[in-house]
Formats: sequence, structure tokens, C-alpha cells
Amino acid sequence: MNELAEKTLHSKTIFNGKVIDLIVEEVELPNGETSTREIVKHPGAVAVIALTGEQKLVLVRQFRKPLNGILYEIPAGKLDPGESPEVCARRELEEETGYRCQEIKHLVSFYTAPGFADELIHLYFTNSLIRGTQHLDEDEFLENVEVDLKEALTLLQEQKIYDAKTVYAVQYLQLQELMK
Amino acid sequence: MNELAEKTLHSKTIFNGKVIDLIVEEVELPNGETSTREIVKHPGAVAVIALTGEQKLVLVRQFRKPLNGILYEIPAGKLDPGESPEVCARRELEEETGYRCQEIKHLVSFYTAPGFADELIHLYFTNSLIRGTQHLDEDEFLENVEVDLKEALTLLQEQKIYDAKTVYAVQYLQLQELMK
Repeated sequence: MNELAEKTLHSKTIFNGKVIDLIVEEVELPNGETSTREIVKHPGAVAVIALTGEQKLVLVRQFRKPLNGILYEIPAGKLDPGESPEVCARRELEEETGYRCQEIKHLVSFYTAPGFADELIHLYFTNSLIRGTQHLDEDEFLENVEVDLKEALTLLQEQKIYDAKTVYAVQYLQLQELMK
Repeated sequence: MNELAEKTLHSKTIFNGKVIDLIVEEVELPNGETSTREIVKHPGAVAVIALTGEQKLVLVRQFRKPLNGILYEIPAGKLDPGESPEVCARRELEEETGYRCQEIKHLVSFYTAPGFADELIHLYFTNSLIRGTQHLDEDEFLENVEVDLKEALTLLQEQKIYDAKTVYAVQYLQLQELMK
């Protein structure tokens, strides 16, 4: 990897926030020149593709300030310090939707925006939901919606499903449907 | 949407960078309380699922400073000011891989990290590649790799394909394979 690696010469913290930190690094490029890299630090997150007994996908309808609009997303949330992704997935699913689950399996993990951020999302799947209790964070307002694959594809078409993890989830359901 | 919307009370620019800006907003929540939102502004980006005549997926192997590691990603890049996504997709594909394309079609667009950033990626597909000329940005170092679906799945397993748009791309190819 050495022929592509960039070496940090200097690192400066610009901002420490509630959710993210911002760092600017001066780096040495593979050709010996220097450049700067702007890096958002994030604690990492989980998301859950949760199917009800009727094979409906559980979504949360939520205002997103960066876009000034409402998206329909699969349940998701940030890792608490030291928390394992699976524990976080179970916790966020129940907090946001009121569903607990029995079995849950890890599907895939991915960096959301590797050009400028280190956020890694761990994506889980469950179809063994049981009723629990919704309890939202104090600055969290959202509504639950359950949709079948056809309705999910309509929301995608309408750009109401419009974020990476949920677009991936819809494609995952299409793939599962074809593999039946 | 009013029952979920957050109203900006105050907006403060923390940082203006080469790639991203950082803004912190004080917002009024639906219940009348206030909170803060940390928002990364990004110009938007494109990415291209490009298949060669041998049905191989064109990837770029690239060091990503936020992760301090090398990822295999589909070709991608930021929109220039005023540039249309399709023009950008054709430009980035040629700059990063040396391939031009005849037909190119828009597949889907998605926000990568709607909790803290407004980056929107427009994803394109082409399988009509013709040889052009690679020309990288001066601070850009990458290698081209072409893989079949089986090799792509191995890279995914090994977490070398490890970012949202490329994980989506691999699943897209799986879906196309099943639909044949």
C-alpha cells in the first residue's frame, strides 16, 4: 500500500461537536508534494433492515436538517462509546420503532463517505420482530411507516427514500425476492 | 411535513474548506425546545458502474485519508460548480480510468450521510466503454482494476470494497445477474 499512502505531516482539530469532529491534516503525497485533507470524525453507526410478519419493511419518517427535508429511512443510530454494533442495532430498532427482535444478523458494513468522513455503518437484518416500547431521544421526532416492496419502490421513485443505507435496503429486498 | 420540521434560529459557519464547509445551526424542534445541528456542506458527487466488454467492473484502488487505508471503489468525483451530473460522470470516468463511454444512464441518487452531511451522489451505469486518456488531479493517486462479479464479491468479503456506493454497485450486479 505504500505507493499510494499519504503521510500525515500535521493535524489540526477545527471543531469538536456533539456528533462529529472536524480535523484538517497536511499530508505528504506519494510523489513527495504536500496537500491538505479535510476529515470528519464520526463514532460509527448501525442500521437495520427489519421485516414484519407480513414481510413489510419498517421505516422511520424523519426530518433531516442537512437536507431541510423529510426522508423515509430504515431505523439507524450512532454507536455509544464502547457499544457493540449488534447491541446498538437492537437498541436503536426498539427506541425508534418499538420493535424488539429475536434473531438479528449482520449483512454488511460500509463507509458512507470515505472521501471526507470516517463514518462506518453496520447493516443488520431481522425478520423476527416482537413488540417492545418506543422511546425516542429528547431531540428526536419521527414517525413509523411499514411498506411492502412495491410501496418501497414507489417511495424510491419519489425520492422520499433517498439515502444510501435505505436505497441499499430496497435493492436487498429486490434481490431476496428474486432469489426466492 | 410541519409536524416534524426543525426551524433554523441561528446559523454559524465554522469552516470553509477545499471540499467541505462546516456549519452549526441552532434549531427549534417540533416541541418548541431548541437543539443544535452540525452540518457538513458538500458540492455533491457522481459515481459510475462501468462494465467492460468482458462484463468486468472497473474499479479504482485509492488511498483514503479519513480511513488511513486503501479502498477499491467505483470511479467517482465531485461536481464542479454548475456542472451537470451526467457531464461530471463522463468526465470523472475518463479522468480516473481512461475510459470514455457512449451511452450512460442514471440509475439512482442518494444522500450518503443525511444525519450530518448534504452530500448527494448521482449513480450512473455504462457498458459502452471506449478507450480515452486517463488524467488525474495533481493530488490524486490511484490504480485501475477490472474484476468480474465473483472477484468483486471476494473484495467485498475482504472489506476492500467497503464504501456505500461500491457495495451498492456489487449488489446491483448481483441483481442484474439474477434478472438475466
